[in-house]
Amino acid sequence: MGYETSTDPAPPPQGSHPERFGAPTGAHARAQLLAFAPLFFQAARCARDLGLLSALERAGGAGLTPDEAAQAAGISRYAAHVLLEACASLELAQLEEGRYRLLDTGRLVLHDPMVRVNFDFTHDVCYRAGFRLRESLEQGRPAGLRELGPWPTVYEGLTHLPEAAKQSWFAFDHFYSDRIFHLALGEIVARSAASLLDVGCNTGRWSALASRTMTVTGVDHEAQLRLAGEHVAAHGCPSRFTAAPLDLLDHSKPFPEGFDAVWMSQLLDCFSEADIERLLARAKSALTPNGRVYVVETFWDRQRSAPPRIALHGTSLYFTCVANGESRMYQSDDVLVCARAAGLEVELDRPLGPWHTLLVLRGDRSPSRPASPS
Amino acid sequence: MGYETSTDPAPPPQGSHPERFGAPTGAHARAQLLAFAPLFFQAARCARDLGLLSALERAGGAGLTPDEAAQAAGISRYAAHVLLEACASLELAQLEEGRYRLLDTGRLVLHDPMVRVNFDFTHDVCYRAGFRLRESLEQGRPAGLRELGPWPTVYEGLTHLPEAAKQSWFAFDHFYSDRIFHLALGEIVARSAASLLDVGCNTGRWSALASRTMTVTGVDHEAQLRLAGEHVAAHGCPSRFTAAPLDLLDHSKPFPEGFDAVWMSQLLDCFSEADIERLLARAKSALTPNGRVYVVETFWDRQRSAPPRIALHGTSLYFTCVANGESRMYQSDDVLVCARAAGLEVELDRPLGPWHTLLVLRGDRSPSRPASPS
Repeated sequence: MGYETSTDPAPPPQGSHPERFGAPTGAHARAQLLAFAPLFFQAARCARDLGLLSALERAGGAGLTPDEAAQAAGISRYAAHVLLEACASLELAQLEEGRYRLLDTGRLVLHDPMVRVNFDFTHDVCYRAGFRLRESLEQGRPAGLRELGPWPTVYEGLTHLPEAAKQSWFAFDHFYSDRIFHLALGEIVARSAASLLDVGCNTGRWSALASRTMTVTGVDHEAQLRLAGEHVAAHGCPSRFTAAPLDLLDHSKPFPEGFDAVWMSQLLDCFSEADIERLLARAKSALTPNGRVYVVETFWDRQRSAPPRIALHGTSLYFTCVANGESRMYQSDDVLVCARAAGLEVELDRPLGPWHTLLVLRGDRSPSRPASPS
Repeated sequence: MGYETSTDPAPPPQGSHPERFGAPTGAHARAQLLAFAPLFFQAARCARDLGLLSALERAGGAGLTPDEAAQAAGISRYAAHVLLEACASLELAQLEEGRYRLLDTGRLVLHDPMVRVNFDFTHDVCYRAGFRLRESLEQGRPAGLRELGPWPTVYEGLTHLPEAAKQSWFAFDHFYSDRIFHLALGEIVARSAASLLDVGCNTGRWSALASRTMTVTGVDHEAQLRLAGEHVAAHGCPSRFTAAPLDLLDHSKPFPEGFDAVWMSQLLDCFSEADIERLLARAKSALTPNGRVYVVETFWDRQRSAPPRIALHGTSLYFTCVANGESRMYQSDDVLVCARAAGLEVELDRPLGPWHTLLVLRGDRSPSRPASPS
């Protein structure tokens, strides 16, 4: 029963300071952190947003008692106690001789932009929906989305989300896309593309950038394309931009045709593998003979360390219970298999910045129509 | 920005197996696990309840591919993918060469009764309320409780909770109390107590046990005392049990008097420190001259390893957003200070089982009324 039969290798805390605790490592500690994870998440967020982590940071190595921390952050003594104790269990802070000092994980929660954008996204977009993860998995639809609005998938609702959810959704989306735009554009320009089809053009940030060097046709929901058009007008070359409303999931509708480049950045992870294959086939049909499909994804097997891989696995669960109930952050092979099945072959497969992969795909050499006898 | 300025000491994964990943240790990994913690919590719960962890356990060292796991657990291929990937990030399972194998933390999530009771309590009682932790801290009231019902504190609502919440609440409560009952009773019997006041007698499990060897008066909300009376009738000696309805927070109302033992087990953590001092003073007034107050608590500073301390810090957050907004799992000194202030001194301070501490308190020797001149 319980700890009596523990397999936890962590020894009890030793040493002369009864209030200095060993780090909560080991299987048992991980299991208990997980068992209370939603409450600990909220405590960490409150410690960040109520100024407690900042107060600890200002105190430096001297640290703060709970009473001092309460005064420094302007929160109740009670709030300081429960939050500091949670921070100690989470290793955001260290407790020694009655004083709490900020640790590296606490500094990351306070300052790291990726950690912050993920925290806000989880709270504002995913938290309440997460209660219905099981329902979502069993039904194959985003059962948690009802906490945000009455849409079948999040994409219909993006422009109508509650304000905090909208802000955190777009902050999250842009954080992972904007930084690779210039790197990717270089590859497209190097292949002398003069026309580009932006599939899922979202808020139009990529279309605006690309329209400065080539003609761009944006494909997305109509409401989204209106926003995109405004963004291109403000930040790009609107005379080179055309909006082409289209339901990406209606595979009977071909994409507009005759493009040197078809752009699909962080788009395919919004679709099931069956849909990915058909989207890639429609993309292939939209190409000029010398055209390429440019796919940008954050594949979890291509990450060079655990932290971004963890973030991608967490993001998959957002797709399950909020977005569409059937897509996820993929491994590279998942998408490469779909590309081959769609008649595309890989011309280039390279990292793009710290987390992204660019796939440049061309129509394969094998004839797609009956070959003439040689 | 982000990982480029990372302080994470974890090296990138090495070795000949590109699909074998290093353990997600280090500050950055902890921060990302925390940023998605509510979703990961739900994924772990689904992996447990949908039979995925059991399927991995049955597969043993051979492990399972996502397709095999989906078939073995009877879930969709999609569900198997997102849950297995979350399990890998959580170190519930290990991914190597495309196969997932259960790790110790996964075995604990599946089988450890304490981990299970905490998981269910967090999901059924605390999850939705946790969204309002900040509001609770700022207002000093359990702002999340509205997700369960319209009561000012959880105690008025205990008998009316939604069924899943009620089951998980009582399973949690009983898990941490039942196991120490016989140990504590030994200390009371050793002091020849013939009458006991059970303060906060809850479902009557302790009253039933104690009534077999002494007379018992139960103090609690009226609705709770009805349940307790039924339990004593079924499992104890109802002729030795008296119900005394009382609002514990109305400090103008003294407790019934003349008891050899006043029993307060896992009661004081339901109150603020100011209230604890007054409750202990009322307890002292209820004693015969030779009587003792018996306090049982799970003090977080008295735990011998990190896992139960983590669980106690998590439980404090339940008090914040669900129970009453002002109490928490205390350090031993917090309660000892209150006891001294209430005019009680410590006769015995001993561990009781793996997590509990028993304090036996007597009226102090210093006269509580004006002493006659010597």
